[in-house]
This record gives sequence, structure tokens and C-alpha cells, in this order.
Amino acid sequence: MATVLQDFSLEQEMQALGRAARAAAQALALAPRPAKDRALLEAAAALRDQRAAILDANAQDMAAARSKGLGGAMLDRLMLDPKRIEAMAQGLEAVAGLEDPVGRELARWRRPNGLDIARVAVPLGVVGIIYESRPNVTADAGALCLKAGNAAILRGGSESFHSSRAIVARLKEGLAAAGLPEAAIQLVPTVDRAAVGIMLRMSEHIDVIVPRGGRSLIERVYAESRIPILAHLEGNCHTYLHASADPKMAVEVTLNAKMRRTGICGATETLLVDRAAAERLLPPVLDALIAAGCAIRGDETVQGLEPRAAPASEEDWRTEYLDAILAVKTVANLDEAIAHVNRYGSHHTDSIVAEDAAAAARFLSEVDSAIVMHNASTQFADGGEFGFGAEIGIATGRLHARGPVGVEQLTSYKYVVRGSGQTRPV
Amino acid sequence: MATVLQDFSLEQEMQALGRAARAAAQALALAPRPAKDRALLEAAAALRDQRAAILDANAQDMAAARSKGLGGAMLDRLMLDPKRIEAMAQGLEAVAGLEDPVGRELARWRRPNGLDIARVAVPLGVVGIIYESRPNVTADAGALCLKAGNAAILRGGSESFHSSRAIVARLKEGLAAAGLPEAAIQLVPTVDRAAVGIMLRMSEHIDVIVPRGGRSLIERVYAESRIPILAHLEGNCHTYLHASADPKMAVEVTLNAKMRRTGICGATETLLVDRAAAERLLPPVLDALIAAGCAIRGDETVQGLEPRAAPASEEDWRTEYLDAILAVKTVANLDEAIAHVNRYGSHHTDSIVAEDAAAAARFLSEVDSAIVMHNASTQFADGGEFGFGAEIGIATGRLHARGPVGVEQLTSYKYVVRGSGQTRPV
Repeated sequence: MATVLQDFSLEQEMQALGRAARAAAQALALAPRPAKDRALLEAAAALRDQRAAILDANAQDMAAARSKGLGGAMLDRLMLDPKRIEAMAQGLEAVAGLEDPVGRELARWRRPNGLDIARVAVPLGVVGIIYESRPNVTADAGALCLKAGNAAILRGGSESFHSSRAIVARLKEGLAAAGLPEAAIQLVPTVDRAAVGIMLRMSEHIDVIVPRGGRSLIERVYAESRIPILAHLEGNCHTYLHASADPKMAVEVTLNAKMRRTGICGATETLLVDRAAAERLLPPVLDALIAAGCAIRGDETVQGLEPRAAPASEEDWRTEYLDAILAVKTVANLDEAIAHVNRYGSHHTDSIVAEDAAAAARFLSEVDSAIVMHNASTQFADGGEFGFGAEIGIATGRLHARGPVGVEQLTSYKYVVRGSGQTRPV
Repeated sequence: MATVLQDFSLEQEMQALGRAARAAAQALALAPRPAKDRALLEAAAALRDQRAAILDANAQDMAAARSKGLGGAMLDRLMLDPKRIEAMAQGLEAVAGLEDPVGRELARWRRPNGLDIARVAVPLGVVGIIYESRPNVTADAGALCLKAGNAAILRGGSESFHSSRAIVARLKEGLAAAGLPEAAIQLVPTVDRAAVGIMLRMSEHIDVIVPRGGRSLIERVYAESRIPILAHLEGNCHTYLHASADPKMAVEVTLNAKMRRTGICGATETLLVDRAAAERLLPPVLDALIAAGCAIRGDETVQGLEPRAAPASEEDWRTEYLDAILAVKTVANLDEAIAHVNRYGSHHTDSIVAEDAAAAARFLSEVDSAIVMHNASTQFADGGEFGFGAEIGIATGRLHARGPVGVEQLTSYKYVVRGSGQTRPV
């Protein structure tokens, strides 16, 4: 009985939050750029001014995480310090500096009957963001939604609840200072996991769900959501060394693509190399990788060339290691390389290293991934590197947004039709 | 036991269909425009050449529908005749004449590090279309998907099964003549309703579901689909006569918006009028509507001006009549009109009739609908009228596509990044 009452009250609370977000979204959709930017700049100032309160809240989260025995990587993601708070503040200022994505005229044309039709960017509405431990996502996601004129309902990881609450309080101070509704950025006020289930059914109040986290979170969201999802699945990215590759570039690009950071979605997980060129191209690449601490798993040809390579299994071609491990496979030619990427990859980011322009053109055309690259490191798969200023994630679906999701991708559009009394003929 | 076996076999059959569609989509994505257009033109020729076979198939459907006691409107939607087959053939030719939406460079820019980034249109992949009785949707939807480089899995109404099968056979002849995979357009080969449920869970093989039909179909799709949906919900459209409206234009636009065709989604369902101008603007509008056979349901002010008006209830403001009935409401001012449309409307298409440019600008900006109009009939809410050539429906969601869905809206995009060996700094 107690549970039923509690669930009922949670449901009511979530619905109230949704209604407030919807009302705020209507106001925010019409907010001029200066108001939105002022909210962001005031929030940045508040983050700096109230650093101590944020660090106190974070200390609570850290203590709880330690007593639960959470590991070092988890603790590092959760931890805030003055430098990270400053980075959050600068992030808000950077978003304020972006062009307003709302109101852009995306297309405009005139029909023979004189109707003038414009496609104009408008906000998506209410964005629900479900994420895990990193408290800085609270500031980033809230800021991007605000800039795009959307209300945000944030559901952070339970480990970071106090930190997120302290950050959201600063964002709300920014909104208030700019005369915008504070309900434009709301944090789900409980760590109860049932709140996520309720959120995913609130299709009347939430227009899109953005999950950011591990596979189990994404799978839960896909299984339960009655709301459209902009999701980031895996980044099983490839670098392919074509026979025409410049050997020096092959080393530099592969080393960067794999080892710059191994834990990001744009890190290369499988290296493909043309068999006929493997003996020439591969040894210096593998030497550099191994010297940098990377473990190699290769097919028989690769093992023949590099005795330190462990054998790769079929499973390796499908694996996103997010670690200093690289699967290496030789392929007969460009066709086999493209087929391998399309079959085993996750349609995220894949790159060809080649001097042969025709081979590169075919790879760019035929590899079916959100981002295809020629002579560049897959680690450039990032909204900031694309010039979007910031990103809320990298979408791996095919609808609405594909690739980095920045403020433009957080908008929809409407058609504005201007006439002079036109009626439609029968 | 028999049922279990049958379901198992249906599941297998649907999965095979999905795999074939996925493989065909990969081929179609790379098909050049001439091949796609040739398939469309050959299919149009086959529709004409094999008119007799299509009419025979349709006669089967019509006989079954009559024996089931289906009504006149349903029979009319189902019926094919030489004129309707010719219209289908011309529809295919019109789609062939459209620009290829695939490969368009949507944006391109260069980063300070020299990376050249282009956003290029690519097909969505596999489109699943679930529709009701009209067999011509089979040709239209198949053609639009083909032109956009997508494979289509079509699930027509059971009433039109034989007609749709005969039409799909012609589309496949076109594909074969153009050297394209016949599996690019497939019809679910059974009228078993369980096939729809299977289809809606085939997220591995289908990228987007487009339901076309009544509320119960749409609700089923929303409840069961594990695949993103491009759906057309209701069109509860408004025409608003601002006090500054030209009286003659008010009559012409309103009459057309309501009565040109009452059964389409862009038909106006509620007329709003500024109270202060109602006495002057409304009588000629209502006279014209009533003379054309329209029933009026009005608030007290409207009933005071027009004795033939029945009383309107709260429910009328929410109703999509799709019939010769109009709800009429007086409002205090522009603010109340905008609030009414945003509260009771379905965010489809809404129009203001006004000479006051500032009032029109506010309506266009503040009404949150897929299509907002000034001095034009809401019946222009149509892909053809927008210049899209043809449409698969009008999307009422906010993600991916909003408003008419033509070939451009049946595409996604990818990023093509061209470098010269760039690596990402740490």
C-alpha cells in the first residue's frame, strides 16, 4: 500500500514537472537571443560565485560513492574541482556565443500561385535527458537545450544527484535573472529509478528523449520509451589503410585514431589494411601502437607480420573495446574493406587513409556511417571539432539527426506560408 | 499447436522479407538517378499495359468487400478504374521527374585545421508503410521510397490485398527492367494482422514506420512500434479572422478552407473571429458556408448573429469533423486566438486572415503548428501544393520531418570529412 501511494505521488510529481516544462517551453520558444544568452552568462557567473556550495554538494556525492565502493574511473567521472567548475562555466559562455539556431530560414520559395513558403527553424519543445554519473552533463545539456529554445527535464545518475541539484540551481538563477521561466530547466527531484519509467511514458509533455550512457541505459530507454529517442549507441569505428596510403600518414592517423583517447566513441576499434600492402604499411603502424601501450589482436596475416599480436576472433570485429586494444584485419581490396565496415561496424565513424582519390571517393560514398572520413583521424567525431560549439551526443540513428547533436539538431521547423487571399482550386 | 507453427512460419517469412529489404536498400542507396527513374517509367508503362490484370485483381477485392457489406465510401476508396490506373501511372512519371534527393550537399564548410566537412543527403534505408484501403497508396508510396533510394515494405489494408499485389508486381517489373533489386519494393504477403505486429518489432530491418490511416491504426502503431514513426495524426485546423481582415477575402478563404473538400486533413474545422469585428465580418462568411451546405456550431455571440447556428460545446473545439460542419468561436483578440489554436488545435495547419501585418507576424510566430499561414486557405496543406511533387503524408510530430513528407523528407544525411592527414590534438 505504501508503495502504491508512493508511486502515485511520484507519478503526480512527474506529471506536474512535465506540465511546467511544457509551459516553460512555450515561453522559451519565443524568447529572443539576448534573453537566452543572458541566462547562460548569469548561470556561468553563478557557477563561479557559488563554487563552494557546488563542491560541498559534490563532496556528499563522492562520500556516498566511496562508501558504496565505486571504482576509480567512476569516482573520477563524478568528481568536481575548481578547474572542472570553471570549465563548466566556460562551456555555458561558449554556448551563449553560438548563433541562435531558432528562427533560421532553412529554405524559402514562391509557388506559381504567388504563395511564399518558408521553412523556419523552431525549438523541438521539451527535451528529456537521461544520463549517468558525470555532473558536467547537467550544465552542458541544460545550456544546449536553453540555447535552442527547448525546456529540459534532466535525469542524472543517482550518484551525482546532489552535484546536479547544485548545478541546476545555478542554471535556474540564470533563467530568473534573464526573466525566463525557471521551469525551463528542471532536475527530476528523486533518485527513485521508477521516475525514469514514468518519464519515458510522458509523451504528452516530452517531445524527445536523449539518453547518454552505457548499453543497459540505452536498452532500457529503447524498450520502455513511448517518446521519440535521439540515441547514441556504440562507436565501433574503423580506420582502413588502402594500398595507396602514405606510410607516414598511416602511422600518424592510426596512432591518433586509436590512442589519443581510448575511451571515447570516435576511437578506432578495428584497423583494416590491404593485404598486398600489409607487409609494407603495417609494421611501422603496429610498432608505434605497441610502443604507445596498445595490445594488438590480428588475423593470421597480421600475426605473421607481428609476433606480439594475439589472435583475433570473429567477436573482435564486433567489439567496441574503449580501451588500448586494436583488432587488425587484412582485406583483399576496397570492396572487402567496405563490406567489412558495413557488416561489423556500428555506422558511427569510419576513415580511409589513401592517396588514391577514386578509392577514397568510393569509401566515402559506400560506407554507410554517420561520419565517413578520408585521411583524418576518427577521433575528430565530435561536435566541437565539427564547429558546432558543443554537442549533447552523437546520434547513431538515421532519423532527425545523425552524427554530432548540437544546438541546430535540437530544433525542428515549421512552414510559414504567406499569401494574398489564395484559395485552392478544386 | 497449429497456431504456434503458423506464427513461427509468419515470423520467419517476415524476417526473410526484412533481410531482403535491407540488402536491396544497400544496393538502392548507390543507384544513380537514371536507374531509379527508369524503374519508375517502366513501372508506369507496365501499369498501363497490364491494366486488365489490375482491374481483375481489383474486382476480386471489390466482390469480397461487397460480400462483407462494406459501405459506399469504403468501396469508392477501394475501387480502381482505367482513369485511376492512368492517374497512378502519371504519378510514377511525376516522381521520376523530381530531382534526385540523394547526394544533395546540404551544407559544407572548412575547419581551421583544414578539414573539409560536408553534410550529404543519403537514403533513410528501409521504410515500412502501413496503410488502409486505397490501392493507389501502394504505387505512390513505393515510388517515393524508390526515388529517395529507400527499400519499401508495404502493408496495405486487407480489403485491397489483391489490387496491391497486382500493382506491386508492376513496380517489381520496373525495378527488374532497370537492373535494380526487386526486393526494393515488397508487399507483406498475407492479410494476417499478426504481420503488422511482427513488422513493428523488426527494428533491425526497418528504419522508419509510416502509418497512413485512421486513429485506431495510428494508436496501434504508437503502442507497439519499436521503430521510429513518421505519423500523421489529426488535422484540427483553424482559420482566424482578425479584425483587420478584408471582408471579401474572409469569405473566399474560409469557404475554400472548409468546403473545397471536407474530408482532408487540411480542411478547417474551427473558425475564430475577433468579437469586435464579428458583426461586420461573420454574417457574409456564414451565409456563404450555409449556402454551400455547411452546418454551423457557434458560441453565444455566433448564435446571436446567425440563428441557424447550433450551440457549440467544449468538445467541438477539439473535434476534427472531416465533414461539412464548422465550429465557430468569437475571441477577444489576437492573444486569445493564438492561445485557443495552441490549446485545442492539433499543431497541423492554421491560418490568419488579416490586413494588419503585425498581427499576422505574431500569429505566424506564436502559433505552434507544422504549417502556419497568412491570407491563404488551410487546404493548401499538401505536398503537391508545396511543390514537393508528391507526399507520403503530413507529419504531425516534431522530429525529423514536420508537415508534408516528400522525397527530401525520406532522406537522412551523413557527414563526409576530407582531410590531408589531420590528427586530433590531445
